[in-house]
Amino acid sequence: MNQAQIPPPGTAAIVSVGDEVLSGRVVDTNAALVARELEAQGWRVVHRSTVGDDIEAIVAHLRVAASQARVVIVGGGLGPTADDVTREGIARFAGVELAEDPEALAVVERALVRSSRGLSAENRRQALLPRGARPIDNPIGTAPGIHWAGPASQILALPGVPRELKVMLEPSLKGIQTQGLGLTATVRDSVIVVGLPESEIGRRLADLMARGAEVSVGSYPTEGVVRIVAECRRTDESRARQLVMEVLGQVRERLGGAVVRRSAPDLATAVFRELLAHGATLAVAESITGGSICNALVGVPGISSVFEGGVVAYANAQKQSWLGVQEALLRSHGAVSAEVAAAMAEGVRRGASTTFGLSTTGVAGPTGGTPQKPVGLVYFALAGPRGTTVEQRVIPGDRELVRERAVAAALDLLRRELET
Amino acid sequence: MNQAQIPPPGTAAIVSVGDEVLSGRVVDTNAALVARELEAQGWRVVHRSTVGDDIEAIVAHLRVAASQARVVIVGGGLGPTADDVTREGIARFAGVELAEDPEALAVVERALVRSSRGLSAENRRQALLPRGARPIDNPIGTAPGIHWAGPASQILALPGVPRELKVMLEPSLKGIQTQGLGLTATVRDSVIVVGLPESEIGRRLADLMARGAEVSVGSYPTEGVVRIVAECRRTDESRARQLVMEVLGQVRERLGGAVVRRSAPDLATAVFRELLAHGATLAVAESITGGSICNALVGVPGISSVFEGGVVAYANAQKQSWLGVQEALLRSHGAVSAEVAAAMAEGVRRGASTTFGLSTTGVAGPTGGTPQKPVGLVYFALAGPRGTTVEQRVIPGDRELVRERAVAAALDLLRRELET
Repeated sequence: MNQAQIPPPGTAAIVSVGDEVLSGRVVDTNAALVARELEAQGWRVVHRSTVGDDIEAIVAHLRVAASQARVVIVGGGLGPTADDVTREGIARFAGVELAEDPEALAVVERALVRSSRGLSAENRRQALLPRGARPIDNPIGTAPGIHWAGPASQILALPGVPRELKVMLEPSLKGIQTQGLGLTATVRDSVIVVGLPESEIGRRLADLMARGAEVSVGSYPTEGVVRIVAECRRTDESRARQLVMEVLGQVRERLGGAVVRRSAPDLATAVFRELLAHGATLAVAESITGGSICNALVGVPGISSVFEGGVVAYANAQKQSWLGVQEALLRSHGAVSAEVAAAMAEGVRRGASTTFGLSTTGVAGPTGGTPQKPVGLVYFALAGPRGTTVEQRVIPGDRELVRERAVAAALDLLRRELET
Repeated sequence: MNQAQIPPPGTAAIVSVGDEVLSGRVVDTNAALVARELEAQGWRVVHRSTVGDDIEAIVAHLRVAASQARVVIVGGGLGPTADDVTREGIARFAGVELAEDPEALAVVERALVRSSRGLSAENRRQALLPRGARPIDNPIGTAPGIHWAGPASQILALPGVPRELKVMLEPSLKGIQTQGLGLTATVRDSVIVVGLPESEIGRRLADLMARGAEVSVGSYPTEGVVRIVAECRRTDESRARQLVMEVLGQVRERLGGAVVRRSAPDLATAVFRELLAHGATLAVAESITGGSICNALVGVPGISSVFEGGVVAYANAQKQSWLGVQEALLRSHGAVSAEVAAAMAEGVRRGASTTFGLSTTGVAGPTGGTPQKPVGLVYFALAGPRGTTVEQRVIPGDRELVRERAVAAALDLLRRELET
């Protein structure tokens, strides 16, 4: 038996609980989030596994995970319904009973008050903790987390609702005892690259991306852009930071204008920061992107200081009535044309009295393409103080992918204007 | 040792290989895809785990997986570079040597010809197979898959590139020996529930959700709604379908109008189908939801036949100019009010000449709340042939969550109108 042995310092394991995850009905984004946060805090993830809503199976997975790692993060199975059995699994693993915990009950009750509901028997189950365990506050949901500290390993159980897990994760990790665990600092930073294929990025950064280098460099395509992540793990944190900065400097040099100047979690935030720095405002007119640009922008906290709003002009009539696009223009060039894209950008800029107007119009597919105007053809226009710029692209991919890449390309048109 | 034992028939395990997956830099969408495909073909997934690019660790995970499942699907670690060691892991697990396989070499060479490249030493490694294993064709990449059949379990190793794994998966699964495995049909269907908390759903469906029932019932919160999934596994598929239908009938009975009438993958699609059935059209005016309703709608194929577009009126000026909301109304009641919500819905309906106009206005937070108008307060309005309806809610949660739930609540207002 491995259980008497204490796993190496700094080791962490992740166990995702839920039939819906095991069967693939839900993609397990939690595990990736937890892994990234663990690594950011200096832990080394040595084990990840997924288990169904089954007490015996949860106990078996906890045994394996706890034999390999000092801390085990469990996600899911803390809900109010009968199929949520993570509480029971931890109790049986720890060899203790479940008992109602007053502090856990307070967490549940606070959540119910927030949503103006009363305490049901189902919710009351959520206040049960394995004896000796401590509850973890849940600021946005009813499920308290569970912190159980064993002789060799600690278990942190968090709800599977991604948003709740997300807000509870960092404070929970900070709360566990890390003395003597030998955590090394991991410094990680990244840049966003727009408009270069990943293979071309790989070619230009081949030597930096080689394995075994002191700074590891990876490329991760996401939402129409590619994020280049540089990461260094050292006990000397400031040296690690310096090395990461040097490598990202080289990345910028080799990829040039395709690298977004401002560091930001996503392209929309980078554009927001540029607009703010320029004291500029924006309105958008979307056809093919159907509200996705607005959607990306309003996800950025503080955006209302620069973003006035937008028009989703899916039908031609709306391009005319809301954006003032001339019917003659629509008739002579068609809705998917450089001329209409320009008129939409100018129309929304005029209507909202903003510094910039940004527009998209294109053929989303799967039907509606012609030899002259194939599926994936998109026109982007930016109207601003220096006049109107129109770009044309053919974006490969399915309906959703075309839309996602079109959002990135539109925001990038504005980004490049603001960076010059 | 468990290894001499043969796992139960129809059991499957999934092992994902790769440092980038273990550390969370990449979200493991492959495992969910594989799980769904396995379940669709009648397998029962009993184990999922993730392991780094490490031969010993891969061997350890294969041992556990093969002790629990008749078939083990391994994803990743078949690339040409030195860190790709799945081949070595399987060979060591099987206790055999690696040797170049002519058929595997042909797969590699065909891929290189397709991309006009020559055979490098790195690519040649990809033609190495554990002795006794068979290669699996890869029609779009250089990495052949590996099929190894042991006495108790079979292993299928596929490349980690999602596109390649996707095209290779189904034919690989079809190619393995399934005689005597006792695969059973899984019938699964679901309904969408809006506006009831999960705990209340759990209370009303407690007996249906009890474990061990012939039809398993689970509830999965997603995007502001709750999906109730009923699932039955039997050799007699038509009987399974009947049982699932019966259970979902009971769910509808007990949850009443909170259950969306039309079966659909999501609420936006259900609303689209209702609009289509009514021959009705829609335009939306969004403030707090900032384009998210438009975004949800344009994700539905065919939506352009019922959806005319929308206005994202983030600023008051745009509520006036695009939607014709009177300045006096904004001044006397404020932008977040029943009166302005109604005026927005009526304004966008008039402007777009649609059957329905749907609007949202609210306090998204984290700042801007007052005792009278707290963060999370949202007004929804629906203007239609029978007049204008306004609903008011206080939605708990962070900025993103409020937005997500507001989208669901707005679409549900329209859904209920269309279902009456």
